[in-house]
Amino acid sequence: MPTPVKFYYDLLSQHSRALYMFFEATKIPYEPIPVSTQQKEYEGKQVKSEYKEYVNRFQQVPMINDAGFKLSEGVTILKYLAREKLVPEHWYPRDSKLRARIDEFLEWQNNNSHTLFNKFVQEKFENSTKIHQNAENDLKLKEYKKLVENTLDVLENEWMQLSKDEEKAHKFMIGDKITIADILTACEVEQPKLVGVDPLDGRPKLTHWLEQVKSTMRPYYDEAHHDFYKITEQASAKN
Amino acid sequence: MPTPVKFYYDLLSQHSRALYMFFEATKIPYEPIPVSTQQKEYEGKQVKSEYKEYVNRFQQVPMINDAGFKLSEGVTILKYLAREKLVPEHWYPRDSKLRARIDEFLEWQNNNSHTLFNKFVQEKFENSTKIHQNAENDLKLKEYKKLVENTLDVLENEWMQLSKDEEKAHKFMIGDKITIADILTACEVEQPKLVGVDPLDGRPKLTHWLEQVKSTMRPYYDEAHHDFYKITEQASAKN
Repeated sequence: MPTPVKFYYDLLSQHSRALYMFFEATKIPYEPIPVSTQQKEYEGKQVKSEYKEYVNRFQQVPMINDAGFKLSEGVTILKYLAREKLVPEHWYPRDSKLRARIDEFLEWQNNNSHTLFNKFVQEKFENSTKIHQNAENDLKLKEYKKLVENTLDVLENEWMQLSKDEEKAHKFMIGDKITIADILTACEVEQPKLVGVDPLDGRPKLTHWLEQVKSTMRPYYDEAHHDFYKITEQASAKN
Repeated sequence: MPTPVKFYYDLLSQHSRALYMFFEATKIPYEPIPVSTQQKEYEGKQVKSEYKEYVNRFQQVPMINDAGFKLSEGVTILKYLAREKLVPEHWYPRDSKLRARIDEFLEWQNNNSHTLFNKFVQEKFENSTKIHQNAENDLKLKEYKKLVENTLDVLENEWMQLSKDEEKAHKFMIGDKITIADILTACEVEQPKLVGVDPLDGRPKLTHWLEQVKSTMRPYYDEAHHDFYKITEQASAKN
């Protein structure tokens, strides 16, 4: 029996949800270690310093410890596991050009939606705890929301058309089999729901593709999003 | 003779400079096609639509066309070339754990410094063209500057210590040989000079490491930064 990979995660984080699904679907032996990143903030210094010393110096999730080898950053962890463990080829194809297409998209995602969506969620939460909510804050949040909507439009109009080309319609983002790009993007697209933005509203290609990912990844998709959806339903009701 | 790789670049972009050095140092046959991203804006719609149709739908540099295979995103292009062309192993080691360390750092860089430094440069340029420079703009730029300084401090204190550990001092970021992480980071660290921030000021580890990269990559380092330094000298004089 190989030593299970220690997996530190918080299902509120998009990369954590993608990794949870990957571990479950590929049956890589792993030890789940949930870390509440919100609680970490509230419990104060002690938890923070322990986490920093033993887990990740940036106190971020997801994070793995594979028989002593500690690794952070969600996309990097997925690629490392695809190399090191016995997982089907389709997750991250060895074909150089297919691999380049996955890398290209995920680099775009990291440079665009990933930072932005997290920042929007953070700003909105911070704003909701302020006693004095002023016009300046409202304007800032409106600007963020517009950027989030624009980025979702680029996903719909530029990236999803790759898989919806009439000549060679693909079921998933890169070809007919699911890859790490699909699960990372599905969890990414769900993220703005935390602040009441419905990413699928008016976006038929994104909607169709997400349904394919969900049905392929069940029941792990629902498990990964169970608590997340409870929170997003509250956020949606408020808006 | 293999078909030269068409390389579209602007040496004001950090990823373009890293790729220029990589092409030169590895002797991969390539056809340099300089694209002025600034001029593109000024020349208007025609250039933009041609660029979008033939080169990159996001009108970004760097970009390559390898015998018909078009690829964008700097880090992705470097990894693709390291796989497809005859380049020494040290640039992007096949060893799974070393590769994971490079990926981890570059993912952190994309999520942190890359978006931020480009945004700061863009905001500062936009501000300098405004007729009415008000207190609100000044405050915004001050906040950005602080974030840039903080990110440079993380590079100095968290990432550079990997290579400066007393027990196993490394010459470069990941081991004793230069990798794609070093050239990408060197060009990244130079970027805030465009807006008058000296990244090396008070950062001895970063300074020492950058000197190693420069001396290893000469004369390509100087060629890649020749025009860039002309502009940064002006920015430095203004501050």
